[in-house]
Amino acid sequence: MPVRCHVHKHVAEVVLDYPPINALDGRAWRELARVVTEVAARDDVRCLLLRGEGRGFCAGADRRDGARAAPDPALRAALRALRECEVPVVSAVHAFVLGGAVGLCGASDVVLAADDAYFVVGGIELGAVRGAAHIAALFPPRKARAAYLTGGRITAAEALRLGAVEKVITPKRLLKEARAFAGLIAAKERNALVRAKAALGRRALRT
Amino acid sequence: MPVRCHVHKHVAEVVLDYPPINALDGRAWRELARVVTEVAARDDVRCLLLRGEGRGFCAGADRRDGARAAPDPALRAALRALRECEVPVVSAVHAFVLGGAVGLCGASDVVLAADDAYFVVGGIELGAVRGAAHIAALFPPRKARAAYLTGGRITAAEALRLGAVEKVITPKRLLKEARAFAGLIAAKERNALVRAKAALGRRALRT
Amino acid sequence: MPVRCHVHKHVAEVVLDYPPINALDGRAWRELARVVTEVAARDDVRCLLLRGEGRGFCAGADRRDGARAAPDPALRAALRALRECEVPVVSAVHAFVLGGAVGLCGASDVVLAADDAYFVVGGIELGAVRGAAHIAALFPPRKARAAYLTGGRITAAEALRLGAVEKVITPKRLLKEARAFAGLIAAKERNALVRAKAALGRRALRT
Repeated sequence: MPVRCHVHKHVAEVVLDYPPINALDGRAWRELARVVTEVAARDDVRCLLLRGEGRGFCAGADRRDGARAAPDPALRAALRALRECEVPVVSAVHAFVLGGAVGLCGASDVVLAADDAYFVVGGIELGAVRGAAHIAALFPPRKARAAYLTGGRITAAEALRLGAVEKVITPKRLLKEARAFAGLIAAKERNALVRAKAALGRRALRT
Repeated sequence: MPVRCHVHKHVAEVVLDYPPINALDGRAWRELARVVTEVAARDDVRCLLLRGEGRGFCAGADRRDGARAAPDPALRAALRALRECEVPVVSAVHAFVLGGAVGLCGASDVVLAADDAYFVVGGIELGAVRGAAHIAALFPPRKARAAYLTGGRITAAEALRLGAVEKVITPKRLLKEARAFAGLIAAKERNALVRAKAALGRRALRT
Repeated sequence: MPVRCHVHKHVAEVVLDYPPINALDGRAWRELARVVTEVAARDDVRCLLLRGEGRGFCAGADRRDGARAAPDPALRAALRALRECEVPVVSAVHAFVLGGAVGLCGASDVVLAADDAYFVVGGIELGAVRGAAHIAALFPPRKARAAYLTGGRITAAEALRLGAVEKVITPKRLLKEARAFAGLIAAKERNALVRAKAALGRRALRT
């Protein structure tokens, strides 16, 4: 299965596990959307922790077979499921965070990054206007422009400086710290978290 | 008196002085609202400097006696008085800056912080949706989420990195530097400051 | 000529060259507006690189002769030309970046700065409400307030920390690195850049 999920102490850990590089095709994005929606609705779930198994967090959309636009509606559905998730979403990323994977971070409330993590959104040659949305959802306007217009990498350290990620951690400790962070959230009542997340969302629009 | 005020060289210094921890009850918040509104209207006042006397800047709302919501309308009135203050407001904070006190900073134009200052907004368990407004008025969206959903502390150094505070200063020098900073503002004409603040406020909404 | 322009490898290099300090009068601002509009429309141009020749990037509007408001409509036209430029605009700044020159940076997609660069917008005494627009277009709200209300300098290092500039470079290497950066952009197709810039602009409004 490209997406695994298990619930432990009120944290739903959603794991991208699609070797070799977690490049998700239409089926995998749809699976992610379904898992997120299902688990977010569970009364005993208070926080989602999204992470990638293997060499990197996620290489974005796999466009190898078929038309290059094929995975996009499914990717959109996955982002929508995350954004609509009532409880907080924490993403823990390492190594490559590419294209749609930057969008996954942008749809999360908090991003924790291993120090080897880097963010790239390419594809402006493909007319991938969607990439602008991915990068602008995570980074402030000028960094989004600099990176998207050149196709350049944003390092974990830069992302921290710019407030896009909450904390940078050694790769070895990422999972442990991410679970501890999600645990801090999940120590609170589900109702309170749902109300707080909704209130923060409304405020963010006005900042 | 929980709130003291004196005007010197066109700077109105408004001091929270409510031992032991400047936790303001309904009466004290109302007093703050009144003092701010009155002093801001004075022709000879060009800048407000808000600070706390004692162990920390302000512990927020005192909810010990009576219904927990009691101080809130008065706290709202104090925030509104600050936001509507025509002349610039500088807050100088040290040690604890809790709950509604974060809102005071959010309603200020400039925040200067001692290096021992830390910001916490808790209370999501109480259904304190207002806390989301306090933290989102001072910090960028992702930090606001990370801190509010966990109840975690934001240090002065982090607040500086994220642009929420203008400068971090040793506790010993805080008052002196804050007065000097307020003095730079108060060296300008009141009319010019009122126009400039209004113009900055309109721009902020569009950024 | 106060404004020079040449196109090389799809990059239009627009150079402010108005000794002694690139303080532009109405005629020079209008010239800048004209040059930007013309060159941005060329099919072979994929990126604009704006820089200043001489002691500093630009000292803003020259208000020495005539009414102090004289250069402002022309300055506005120059900013509008930059903002409406369909292809990405990179500004490379060194030493003084004053008043309207901060507005030029704010109208650019990416700003690269020499480590000796500093940004100042003064003039609130003149009722220059426009200054608020210049500074708020480049800096986050609290830094904009702190600097504009005091007339204080923002260093290149601070601008980097706050995400206003993309990179800080030694003055010696600024031109070389700026051309290389513009070259990265100009390696992409004009159509793709136009679409990407438009998409980023739309997103920025919603962040």
